[in-house]
Amino acid sequence: MDMNTNFIVFYLFINYVDHFSFVTNETFNIRYLINDTYWNNKTGPIFFYTGNEGDIEVFAQNTGFMWEIAPKFNALLIFAEHRYYGKSLPYGNKTFSDPKYLGYLTSEQALADYVDLIAHLTWNDNKSYKNPVIAFGGSYGGMLAAYIRMKYPHMVAGAIASSAPIWQFTGLTPCDVFSRIVTSDFEIENKSCSFNIRRSWNIINNITSNEDGLKWITNEWKLCRPLKNSTDVRDLKNWLSDVYNNLAMVNYPYPTNFLTPLPGYPIRKFCKKLQNTTATGKDLLNLLYKSVTVYFNYTGSSKCLNFDDSTPSLGADLWDYQACTEMVMPMCQNGNTDMFEPQEWDLLKFTHECEKKWKVTPKPYLIEKLYGGKDLSTASNIIFSNGLLDPWAGGGVLKVNSKTIKVVLIPEAAHHLDLRATTPIDPLSVIESRKLYKKIIYLWIKEHEINSIIQNV
Amino acid sequence: MDMNTNFIVFYLFINYVDHFSFVTNETFNIRYLINDTYWNNKTGPIFFYTGNEGDIEVFAQNTGFMWEIAPKFNALLIFAEHRYYGKSLPYGNKTFSDPKYLGYLTSEQALADYVDLIAHLTWNDNKSYKNPVIAFGGSYGGMLAAYIRMKYPHMVAGAIASSAPIWQFTGLTPCDVFSRIVTSDFEIENKSCSFNIRRSWNIINNITSNEDGLKWITNEWKLCRPLKNSTDVRDLKNWLSDVYNNLAMVNYPYPTNFLTPLPGYPIRKFCKKLQNTTATGKDLLNLLYKSVTVYFNYTGSSKCLNFDDSTPSLGADLWDYQACTEMVMPMCQNGNTDMFEPQEWDLLKFTHECEKKWKVTPKPYLIEKLYGGKDLSTASNIIFSNGLLDPWAGGGVLKVNSKTIKVVLIPEAAHHLDLRATTPIDPLSVIESRKLYKKIIYLWIKEHEINSIIQNV
Repeated sequence: MDMNTNFIVFYLFINYVDHFSFVTNETFNIRYLINDTYWNNKTGPIFFYTGNEGDIEVFAQNTGFMWEIAPKFNALLIFAEHRYYGKSLPYGNKTFSDPKYLGYLTSEQALADYVDLIAHLTWNDNKSYKNPVIAFGGSYGGMLAAYIRMKYPHMVAGAIASSAPIWQFTGLTPCDVFSRIVTSDFEIENKSCSFNIRRSWNIINNITSNEDGLKWITNEWKLCRPLKNSTDVRDLKNWLSDVYNNLAMVNYPYPTNFLTPLPGYPIRKFCKKLQNTTATGKDLLNLLYKSVTVYFNYTGSSKCLNFDDSTPSLGADLWDYQACTEMVMPMCQNGNTDMFEPQEWDLLKFTHECEKKWKVTPKPYLIEKLYGGKDLSTASNIIFSNGLLDPWAGGGVLKVNSKTIKVVLIPEAAHHLDLRATTPIDPLSVIESRKLYKKIIYLWIKEHEINSIIQNV
Repeated sequence: MDMNTNFIVFYLFINYVDHFSFVTNETFNIRYLINDTYWNNKTGPIFFYTGNEGDIEVFAQNTGFMWEIAPKFNALLIFAEHRYYGKSLPYGNKTFSDPKYLGYLTSEQALADYVDLIAHLTWNDNKSYKNPVIAFGGSYGGMLAAYIRMKYPHMVAGAIASSAPIWQFTGLTPCDVFSRIVTSDFEIENKSCSFNIRRSWNIINNITSNEDGLKWITNEWKLCRPLKNSTDVRDLKNWLSDVYNNLAMVNYPYPTNFLTPLPGYPIRKFCKKLQNTTATGKDLLNLLYKSVTVYFNYTGSSKCLNFDDSTPSLGADLWDYQACTEMVMPMCQNGNTDMFEPQEWDLLKFTHECEKKWKVTPKPYLIEKLYGGKDLSTASNIIFSNGLLDPWAGGGVLKVNSKTIKVVLIPEAAHHLDLRATTPIDPLSVIESRKLYKKIIYLWIKEHEINSIIQNV
């Protein structure tokens, strides 16, 4: 199915900048994509993607599962863009000109946007029956799908929360789990791969300790801007870490274009070039460069390596703002049980950096206060799915004691592979998971129908 | 039990003015009252009154039920003051100087205050067990008790929501129900009483149509300020309506001092003086004046009738702000099935008045979007109790299809009588209700203990 055709219509919707006070009555537009080709508007459900940190078209294009099951359910498809991303800018062009305009970029405000949109779509004076809404989301979008069901169950009958790390917060998950899973993804391909990455940090540090080495890497790695000092070196190492993390997230079995254009099983491709365990110094860095080209230049169109941006298709900078306010996700590495340069989680340092960069102070416990921690005893009608290759699974819901919350573990999947369109080479565990989702969505819709009857009895 | 003794300690707590954005990081103090005399701080519950529109001391003094059951449960008592009332002013003395400072007076912000306070009381690094919190509240406080359980079930194990009109909103309850119940409360005492009140409006209108009449009422009714024009007459009639509404709300079987000092069964006292069905014109108004003295001058200390304020002990003006923003509760009278002067619910007119007075535009559907409408299928562990003499019962939850929501109807009770201290003349239905609450609170605490175990298994 081609999702770039004119099936998609663009709509705009007037929304409040601030849903929770009456200090301002400013409004703005959020964008949403709509497809009513298959919709039975009397009883058909609304499949509602709770947009996350990026252009909503990217998520619509990478969530083929919703498109594929819409005809069977006679569903309306909605992809709602998250405020402050894509074309949904509360203050237009000046949104990013000053941190003061960013203050309404919070998950609660985004959920309230979606609630307004759902009310707009389903509340109708002439209809006693409100069409059931099923929320879908992956990653942060999956967190929002779970949260909207938890906080607004009267608006959403159920939620598919794929790869949603709702427990990747202070005190809920050890900070090193993410990096351990990434390392394991590389180790599975071949042990030499993670071994060489682990060794590379010191080599980079040694070589970049003098002018010649900085120039050497700048030239040999074809960097878009030269390495001049230790800050640049830190940026390059951060970019490398991001690349490893991203490869683990999108280690899909077939070529994709989600974070950046990549081949199928990109870690396998990456690690093929890092099998030599005797190479050292510049030789190892030459091999490493060949490996990372798999990530930044799979298409061959990159003129140089831009180590300032590892995810060109997502709104990474604004996500940094969210991480500096409520999405405070502790991460750490020890270089021992993982392949990364050791780095402790330092909230104080993190806070200082956020205050400097965005003029905000992180609230590390806000998410737990808002949405709850490990206690899911009152939540219902949510599927938490996690690919076991996905580093975000570490902060995901991997077990739960509940009759109405379903945990689905998918051994062969990376980050929200289950929400992608069907391909001939999908792993069996992904195929089976999607079958289960369909059954459970059907149940939620029936339950919604029953609730509507009970309410009027 | 004397609740005015030094059992009560005053604390202050630093809170964010805005919980849902990062536009401001201003903080302020909310006040709360605490009593730990009976508390087992290892396992004992916290009985948490979610303060409503007024000085928290008033609610602490009028919620004796919490005090009475605290020893049996080894409970900590907390009475949290609602922001913008009492001593909990976000901007200190200048809070009321300009409508722009009032914008953070919303139920969502108040709930987030309470969540912060609960976290402060129960989150402790050294304790794996968080003490269970039971929310209590009457009227708007009861709405907040229900809402905090619905929105933050991870923070609150259960809620006693007494006389909480969570359905007194657009489209959920007919606008005339409230006035019909008030009328019925007067009619029950004697039919002449409501008959005479119904007749009085035209008599007031006729007499105040000329200067002499305005002077006559000013003098005979000992008004604190003279009636000069039709606006004053409207104010006086509004005051009368408020008095009838208030009498119905606090028609308790014994003397109380909640809204104003009143005798037991005040409507009975009131109606005793209005049995003459032949009196007309000024004669009827003389009788009516004698009746209303029961309300405004039961103690004999009022020098004059102040028709600008019917509830001196509550923050009525700020409640008007809340009614003009999110608490839009449609009310109407027809003079036919009720005893009031006919008045339609006119949202447009209401909106204009709010915009003029407070510079805000009401959002009549906001509460339903935030907290849900008739669908309580996912809510749990809430008791909705309603006195059938209470006009607010009309917008309350009188039936529900749920295993974990309990509806308690109390035939002989007015507005949250069940939350008051025990007296020797409590109606049987009130006594039985309180027994039931104790059993259910016990269950909620056990359920909380079980959830805590399951979570760590």
